[in-house]
Amino acid sequence: MAKKAPRNAFYAQSGGVTAVINATACGVLQEARRHPARIGKVFAGRDGIIGALTENLIDTSKESAAAIAALRYTPAGAFGSCLYKLKSFAESEAEYRRLIEVFKAHDIATFFYNGGNDSMDTANKVSRISSQLGYPITCIGIPKTVDNDLVLTDNCPGFGSVAKYVAISMREAGMDVASMARTSTKIFILEVMGRHAGWITAACGLSATTPGSAPHVLLFPEIRFDETAFLARVQRAVDRYGYCAIGVSEGLRTADGTFLSETGLTDAFGHAQLGGVAPVIANLIQQRLGHKYHWAVADYLQRSARHIASASDVEQAYAVGVAAVKFAISGKSAVMAAIKRTSTQPYRWKVEPVPLAQVANREKMMPRAFISADGFHITPACRRYLLPLIAGEDYPPYQGGLPRYVSLKNQLVPKKLYESFTIR
Amino acid sequence: MAKKAPRNAFYAQSGGVTAVINATACGVLQEARRHPARIGKVFAGRDGIIGALTENLIDTSKESAAAIAALRYTPAGAFGSCLYKLKSFAESEAEYRRLIEVFKAHDIATFFYNGGNDSMDTANKVSRISSQLGYPITCIGIPKTVDNDLVLTDNCPGFGSVAKYVAISMREAGMDVASMARTSTKIFILEVMGRHAGWITAACGLSATTPGSAPHVLLFPEIRFDETAFLARVQRAVDRYGYCAIGVSEGLRTADGTFLSETGLTDAFGHAQLGGVAPVIANLIQQRLGHKYHWAVADYLQRSARHIASASDVEQAYAVGVAAVKFAISGKSAVMAAIKRTSTQPYRWKVEPVPLAQVANREKMMPRAFISADGFHITPACRRYLLPLIAGEDYPPYQGGLPRYVSLKNQLVPKKLYESFTIR
Repeated sequence: MAKKAPRNAFYAQSGGVTAVINATACGVLQEARRHPARIGKVFAGRDGIIGALTENLIDTSKESAAAIAALRYTPAGAFGSCLYKLKSFAESEAEYRRLIEVFKAHDIATFFYNGGNDSMDTANKVSRISSQLGYPITCIGIPKTVDNDLVLTDNCPGFGSVAKYVAISMREAGMDVASMARTSTKIFILEVMGRHAGWITAACGLSATTPGSAPHVLLFPEIRFDETAFLARVQRAVDRYGYCAIGVSEGLRTADGTFLSETGLTDAFGHAQLGGVAPVIANLIQQRLGHKYHWAVADYLQRSARHIASASDVEQAYAVGVAAVKFAISGKSAVMAAIKRTSTQPYRWKVEPVPLAQVANREKMMPRAFISADGFHITPACRRYLLPLIAGEDYPPYQGGLPRYVSLKNQLVPKKLYESFTIR
Repeated sequence: MAKKAPRNAFYAQSGGVTAVINATACGVLQEARRHPARIGKVFAGRDGIIGALTENLIDTSKESAAAIAALRYTPAGAFGSCLYKLKSFAESEAEYRRLIEVFKAHDIATFFYNGGNDSMDTANKVSRISSQLGYPITCIGIPKTVDNDLVLTDNCPGFGSVAKYVAISMREAGMDVASMARTSTKIFILEVMGRHAGWITAACGLSATTPGSAPHVLLFPEIRFDETAFLARVQRAVDRYGYCAIGVSEGLRTADGTFLSETGLTDAFGHAQLGGVAPVIANLIQQRLGHKYHWAVADYLQRSARHIASASDVEQAYAVGVAAVKFAISGKSAVMAAIKRTSTQPYRWKVEPVPLAQVANREKMMPRAFISADGFHITPACRRYLLPLIAGEDYPPYQGGLPRYVSLKNQLVPKKLYESFTIR
């Protein structure tokens, strides 16, 4: 009896990339290569799910073992990612049908989707719809988001490294300001990501381990901005310590729900200046308290900072990739590879399957118990939760003073379908 | 014959602090401790030269050898620094007299001044004036400035680490943008320091080692902003590579000499928004080319980023501190411990004394030959100059996921003078 060739798999990166999403890709690809009898080729979507829709499939079998291994320490999305959401079947029927058609044409039986809430929702829908259409696909979600807002997982790979980066940056810049506050800048503001959930803002707070050390004030998206209380808090830090370091979420809102970043600035033509809550806060402090300020906006630097990735984060990012393949091989589907914390001190965890339906479209905000009563800092409980996630350093290799990150060949598979597909 | 006690020394940090100015302090203090017969105590100025004027002298002999050793990997100014400039003797006579009085009261015979142009000028004046006043002080300048703008030294300790940080940040953020440009951000702008000299902007360019990699455009303070040429250059990168990454100096100016950062934005009250050339450039691109953008302002993060300091920079920062003490002991005065490059490949250097008078108040701008003909990138000559300065990584120790930086006791010496001195 002729042995049937193993069927192929498809892997796509989705949404904003991170310092460790390629570590997950590394886990998926290395584990798949360990099971040649069960998984044939792994195709990756060029620019994420768009690559499947447009039949731009990258043949990862063309990449050397060394290149795949190098993904573990390479930031950003090695195959490209996209902000593109498939809606309901009723609204996006053509896209779902196209996806299944492409999967069929390339004998793809397994779909690994590496992303956030939306991606878990899409993977769940593909699982259901593919069965209805008579071509059942094994769908495994793999968590990734710097926002740390997926439910049913201890944390989201990508977050730990941002957390480490912002905590270190706050410590270093805080020391800088403290050195010179007597004659120079007294206020330092670091703007960080996290439009809805304040996890990254909270991570800034990890830097404050000794009395008076930075940051002195955190502004969370979960807490509406109270200007009077904030200014009093800033002045108190200046009085006590000579300076005040502030971590602020890009998603900070006023009492009426407006983003602070949209309230303050207009350009020379009178257009609202988008982005940049830090300068708004800085101007407010200068006008009301008269202190000299500096501000930084970390923006993409924070989520791509592989040079100071958390070793714990890298390990978990890799582990969820490996587990996703194991789940698929063991016959599971419509599940996400979630991290379950089994102990905090010492930190212990394992990867477990959780139903995609329970993860999709839900958001994990900071619990109120993680924010201090006055709303301006983190609690010891929050610190206990966060600390294991930034543990350890996982340095990339360097060459000529710069990190030696890999670029893949990204060779496309010849197309098999007659029709092309245009992304709206 | 009773042996005379060795006389004391005074060390002060001046101006903006850096990731490695404490490595210089480490060099000074460790070398001084190696010569107990020649140098008594080393006092450090609390908040720099202000500490001398107000007689707030830190007794570094109270610090353990371990604490002093830890300065090598601790960023910012361990004793405090200040932006405070002594003017000419005619204008600031009281201050010079006070300085000498404090030095006399504490038997200080040597003055180590660790700073930029202004500090070299002050050290030079103190040398001359102290002789005129009959209390000659040995004055040794030690270079420090992230701006890299001191003359007669190959580079300025502090710069190499900023250079490494911005080059790595540009590489990482550039890869992030490249991954997602098809459906998301096409323009990324990183604003860096260097108001007059474009050395830090140039260092961003080190990241571009393969065709199409970030950055695609650099905007130097030495080159007046040409909007039309700039926009054409941005669009060309988007057409060719799908995205455009830009490094811009905070000191970029329009053709009439106005800072770009002061042209664009006003706050809700109509005040000009100070700082932030990145959002001005971003808005311009969006209005004229219609591309989605992101921008980052590294601000103090870049100059305090000890977590990714250049090993070459740390080594040189330490070496100039050691050399300063050696110069003093060997009877030199009114000199700066300058770095002399003796070979580029391999990079070889030594520390040499150069007359303070030749360094004071001069500025080393980027040579035009280091900027490409079109004004938007660096040349191979610039790359050859810069690369050795970012060579090697010198990681600090970590504890609980964060760098374990030292805080000194900073115990003050009892005051000896009756009169206090008030800083203007």
